[in-house]
Amino acid sequence: MKLAELTWPEVESVSREVVVVIPTGSLEQHGLHLPLFTDTLIVTAVAESVERQLGEQVVLTPTLWLGASGHHLDFPGSLSSDFDSYVGAISSVVESLIPHGFVRFYVLNGHGGNQDPNGIAIRTLKQKFPMLTLGHSGYYAFCEEAVAKILTGPLKTMAHACEAETSLMLHLQPGLVHLDRAKDDGLKSEPPLKGVIHTFREMTEHGAFGFPSYATAEKGEVIFKAAVSGVVQELRAIAEGYALLGPAL
Amino acid sequence: MKLAELTWPEVESVSREVVVVIPTGSLEQHGLHLPLFTDTLIVTAVAESVERQLGEQVVLTPTLWLGASGHHLDFPGSLSSDFDSYVGAISSVVESLIPHGFVRFYVLNGHGGNQDPNGIAIRTLKQKFPMLTLGHSGYYAFCEEAVAKILTGPLKTMAHACEAETSLMLHLQPGLVHLDRAKDDGLKSEPPLKGVIHTFREMTEHGAFGFPSYATAEKGEVIFKAAVSGVVQELRAIAEGYALLGPAL
Amino acid sequence: MKLAELTWPEVESVSREVVVVIPTGSLEQHGLHLPLFTDTLIVTAVAESVERQLGEQVVLTPTLWLGASGHHLDFPGSLSSDFDSYVGAISSVVESLIPHGFVRFYVLNGHGGNQDPNGIAIRTLKQKFPMLTLGHSGYYAFCEEAVAKILTGPLKTMAHACEAETSLMLHLQPGLVHLDRAKDDGLKSEPPLKGVIHTFREMTEHGAFGFPSYATAEKGEVIFKAAVSGVVQELRAIAEGYALLGPAL
Amino acid sequence: MKLAELTWPEVESVSREVVVVIPTGSLEQHGLHLPLFTDTLIVTAVAESVERQLGEQVVLTPTLWLGASGHHLDFPGSLSSDFDSYVGAISSVVESLIPHGFVRFYVLNGHGGNQDPNGIAIRTLKQKFPMLTLGHSGYYAFCEEAVAKILTGPLKTMAHACEAETSLMLHLQPGLVHLDRAKDDGLKSEPPLKGVIHTFREMTEHGAFGFPSYATAEKGEVIFKAAVSGVVQELRAIAEGYALLGPAL
Amino acid sequence: MKLAELTWPEVESVSREVVVVIPTGSLEQHGLHLPLFTDTLIVTAVAESVERQLGEQVVLTPTLWLGASGHHLDFPGSLSSDFDSYVGAISSVVESLIPHGFVRFYVLNGHGGNQDPNGIAIRTLKQKFPMLTLGHSGYYAFCEEAVAKILTGPLKTMAHACEAETSLMLHLQPGLVHLDRAKDDGLKSEPPLKGVIHTFREMTEHGAFGFPSYATAEKGEVIFKAAVSGVVQELRAIAEGYALLGPAL
Amino acid sequence: MKLAELTWPEVESVSREVVVVIPTGSLEQHGLHLPLFTDTLIVTAVAESVERQLGEQVVLTPTLWLGASGHHLDFPGSLSSDFDSYVGAISSVVESLIPHGFVRFYVLNGHGGNQDPNGIAIRTLKQKFPMLTLGHSGYYAFCEEAVAKILTGPLKTMAHACEAETSLMLHLQPGLVHLDRAKDDGLKSEPPLKGVIHTFREMTEHGAFGFPSYATAEKGEVIFKAAVSGVVQELRAIAEGYALLGPAL
Repeated sequence: MKLAELTWPEVESVSREVVVVIPTGSLEQHGLHLPLFTDTLIVTAVAESVERQLGEQVVLTPTLWLGASGHHLDFPGSLSSDFDSYVGAISSVVESLIPHGFVRFYVLNGHGGNQDPNGIAIRTLKQKFPMLTLGHSGYYAFCEEAVAKILTGPLKTMAHACEAETSLMLHLQPGLVHLDRAKDDGLKSEPPLKGVIHTFREMTEHGAFGFPSYATAEKGEVIFKAAVSGVVQELRAIAEGYALLGPAL
Repeated sequence: MKLAELTWPEVESVSREVVVVIPTGSLEQHGLHLPLFTDTLIVTAVAESVERQLGEQVVLTPTLWLGASGHHLDFPGSLSSDFDSYVGAISSVVESLIPHGFVRFYVLNGHGGNQDPNGIAIRTLKQKFPMLTLGHSGYYAFCEEAVAKILTGPLKTMAHACEAETSLMLHLQPGLVHLDRAKDDGLKSEPPLKGVIHTFREMTEHGAFGFPSYATAEKGEVIFKAAVSGVVQELRAIAEGYALLGPAL
Repeated sequence: MKLAELTWPEVESVSREVVVVIPTGSLEQHGLHLPLFTDTLIVTAVAESVERQLGEQVVLTPTLWLGASGHHLDFPGSLSSDFDSYVGAISSVVESLIPHGFVRFYVLNGHGGNQDPNGIAIRTLKQKFPMLTLGHSGYYAFCEEAVAKILTGPLKTMAHACEAETSLMLHLQPGLVHLDRAKDDGLKSEPPLKGVIHTFREMTEHGAFGFPSYATAEKGEVIFKAAVSGVVQELRAIAEGYALLGPAL
Repeated sequence: MKLAELTWPEVESVSREVVVVIPTGSLEQHGLHLPLFTDTLIVTAVAESVERQLGEQVVLTPTLWLGASGHHLDFPGSLSSDFDSYVGAISSVVESLIPHGFVRFYVLNGHGGNQDPNGIAIRTLKQKFPMLTLGHSGYYAFCEEAVAKILTGPLKTMAHACEAETSLMLHLQPGLVHLDRAKDDGLKSEPPLKGVIHTFREMTEHGAFGFPSYATAEKGEVIFKAAVSGVVQELRAIAEGYALLGPAL
Repeated sequence: MKLAELTWPEVESVSREVVVVIPTGSLEQHGLHLPLFTDTLIVTAVAESVERQLGEQVVLTPTLWLGASGHHLDFPGSLSSDFDSYVGAISSVVESLIPHGFVRFYVLNGHGGNQDPNGIAIRTLKQKFPMLTLGHSGYYAFCEEAVAKILTGPLKTMAHACEAETSLMLHLQPGLVHLDRAKDDGLKSEPPLKGVIHTFREMTEHGAFGFPSYATAEKGEVIFKAAVSGVVQELRAIAEGYALLGPAL
Repeated sequence: MKLAELTWPEVESVSREVVVVIPTGSLEQHGLHLPLFTDTLIVTAVAESVERQLGEQVVLTPTLWLGASGHHLDFPGSLSSDFDSYVGAISSVVESLIPHGFVRFYVLNGHGGNQDPNGIAIRTLKQKFPMLTLGHSGYYAFCEEAVAKILTGPLKTMAHACEAETSLMLHLQPGLVHLDRAKDDGLKSEPPLKGVIHTFREMTEHGAFGFPSYATAEKGEVIFKAAVSGVVQELRAIAEGYALLGPAL
């Protein structure tokens, strides 16, 4: 169910066993060839496809599209929320629904920069409302295998405006992709470093990271389906209940 | 221009004389007959129509749909941002663009509950960046005359899920309107009071305020065109420059 | 009753049906001819006159004189609270009294710039304590008719350091008015704009707005009495109880 | 000079060598016999007397009367600001004036509970604006000797609603003192403790601390004059300049 | 007991009558001759000595070493917490333990600059949890008499990097003291002032205040023992219970 | 160099090419057999060993031991900072040193729960001070290979109070390890879930996660050396400078 389209009496009659799904995106530079809304468009498409499959097991909110994108602000057009307001938006959504008996919430993320504050938001809510079931994950965590397998460029993981993201956009929104402008891009530290944080101005030449020149709509479709399928499985398990058992490995 | 669809090099080449337009909506109960996203759908439609008319004179951001709706939270499905996060979202959008030379910003509002915090946001920005041109207004402030003239029910102003809003939705999103469920609704204090703040649970029976039973798509079209026309005039004046002259009346 | 003058056992014995009245003012430039404390002096005089008439139906706190006056800060001597501290002061007053059983609170405002944050304060409290009766209004909202009727200058509404405010000060504090220095002042945008926010440095020549040269103490007395009478009526209705009835118009 | 009574052009012409004096008070229970506004009334009287003596060397703001009085909230009528808003009010006053060239600020305090947050406020401002001259002190720090000498009851220091405060009120506002209701009051820990914080509900029987039954207006006058004289000396030294010399003892 | 060394089942079995002791220190310049960690080293040594004497009557947390040291930041190496985070750390420690039934907390301070925010922290907690026993004091408040008696230099109280602190460090950590570099230091205002706040850059020549050249390890031992003994007495009284009795003097 | 032991003139003479290293730990339950301070003890030991090897290339601050441990608070003795204060502490350390010319900062983490807020802290600083070199990583990220190779229990990664952490403690602090009390512990969701956040009360039986019964001091030594060696390599690369080169893979 799409929350936006319901009336309040319709919400009132929804089962409280549903998972409320809150997609988080961004509006930020995606290199020379992808539109600023790339992350939001992809995660919204994944979420809506999931919603179609899960039907009454989920309530899907609109996408919180204003992401945490401070590392992209050097490139004009990028918008970034301060962290407090970003976290506050997620908390506000969840805390608006709690008094009406909803108990399962899942933030479905489409932008790497949102991961830290999604963690803060969900962990803060979990501490305040320990009985809730709360989760968050990038959609991309569910298609790592598919990505590794389908990509033909040198980089086999999802980066930023890369072969995988560009493929997804060619599948979902081809009219917004300027493949002719794409440049393979992205720098690495030498010697290699694990923990240093760079802005995209520092670590790319044009704002992308990876090999978009290898992108195709077909690859995009494969990745998209894998992501949707993984998210469906995760949310269905939450909606239908799961056990915590030992030993853990 | 729609910011979401641009690449960063396209934004870089945009004239800095444009007005950045930031629509603000809500996701909140709208009585028995309108969907939760009503305010967001209307203001987004107004904004997009304005953008089509003004072309390169405006840059339109996506709608900040999470509104300040605390007075609707008694009705399930309503989502409300805390005020700080709401204000922070607007500030974040504006402050992301200032370093790139944009100097004109306008918050176009679709939900009465956002007016106070829109004022806080814009005034705080004006104090911090006094050289900017900053404005905010509800789209409904531009069609008051049309509303007063076209409505045939007893209430001649725009309220909440009323004849006017329902007409707008019948014009814009008829598939989401359940006119058969609509109930004329809304209470008033006796004796009359000017300043007391009530929740919608207190001041309505079903969440609406006004006379939706009188709504028609035709009225909605008239109101919509008036709103668009008024907003176009306001934004064009800002984009093309205006003078401050005395005496004021 | 004036809270400031009571002892705590006297407060303990007060009826919990009283309306706690919290005046809000400012200390900000009022053109060449009025003192910085103008708003505070007027709203305090209104509040004290109301208190004399309503007696045991109200508890009047001292005036929160530090207003939200960022748009006046270009003129030396103006003081402005940041919005958070301003809102926090109102909340603190109300939340100090709630544990002792007081349930009706009314912010009586004397400065236009306080309206947005008064709304934020009162709405936040209403969301947190839905059973309370909470209201806020400018005293000037109760005398609009009298103002429109009595003023003889070109502007028929209350502005800033204008004919109406100057008349009120001539009635209340003639020793602080320098009528000989007054200049009719105030600019308007051409073409006209609805939503752009200007500082007083931008939209006036000397800090005033309107036609103070027309001011007289007699007009001030008429306006003052109208304001007091309107506020008395509003607060009495709250103190004595009111009904919420339909249909609303 | 009293800031409240000036116009902005008058402030513009004030010497920037003045000390801006910001009194801080409270509205809180003061036992059975003193009004809630006691601290504000006393510190305002001291400040106004100082202003009369120092003339153009000081600019006196109105008293920030909403104090930090959490330890008194058990007694009805007491109002307490949260610490953030309290500190924000002082910062707002100072930061409104800095852009106009004022460089000397002094918070004159009338309520012990304000000391910690006054320290926070002034130290934060000093860190942000190290070139400013910033100070804060209770008026009572300037009359300790006079208090010790003039009091005839068992306690020789200033406490709360005690012999000294009651005497000051008998001198300044006899009409608000109910000496017939006064009870000598106040508990001490046994064994004695240095650092434990108690509320006034815990450490008094009726909200007072000390021996108000010994109070007289004559004692109040002596204490008042000593306080005024000490504050005058402190502020004059700041206004006229002072040296920092070693060695310190 | 040292909290750091316990397992959670061991904490579970601790008596809830214990006093949880939270030492607060700093890392800030201490003149030419003492290390930045001086305050932390001293207060930790006092606290550990107290813990050895009181055994199961106290639970000692590690020292919160990041102090409020804004007035020292001109000297490189000094670290200062913003006040909010400083207060938040203390609150977080206390609020983590309250749900497990601990009811007595004492902040033992080693740095004068922490006093104001320790007051804010403890008073805020007391207002929120009035049934708790909460206290805070500098260790130096317990050895004033010993300091006054043992010091042989011109200054008879504890200042900063002075004879007393240097003596304590010679007793506790002689390897970190560079007595040969010490310079007697510190300025005073002329004429004398009570309330003006200066940075250490303003009020010292090299960052110290007092007469370290007189310091000896023997004096340090005397002061240390006095401090420990006083703190032991205070905490034992809290752990074993005390009465509040009148009249207070 | 250890910052705590330096005097301010010694800090003044330090090369500004050093990396300031800020360890972050926790004080939280570590199962039945490890002390609450486990994370702090390990990361401090790693940091001090690194400092001994890198000498004048690093400035090591004391460990910020109050971690973000909300998910452990069900177990008594665990202390958790709220996220704002946690982030504020790191920012405060960095911002205290920036005015003195230090430009390289690295947060070395010892507790998984700190990762999200360390990201927030470092990214916020990077956005505010883009010219700085800023990084953060868990020490455990540098010894994953060694852990995978040396562990003999069923779980080959580092968890919580597991074989790896227990081994490290047996190597570093054997006197604080109660190996006889250790229980292999930890639950997993069935079906498996990627994104759901559980408290340790939910996902363990006794607070541990993994197979501590397999722990030995020898394994601990191997892991410790690997961690130290990896951190040394990372920090040396930062201290000596590195290049950003394409293409990235």
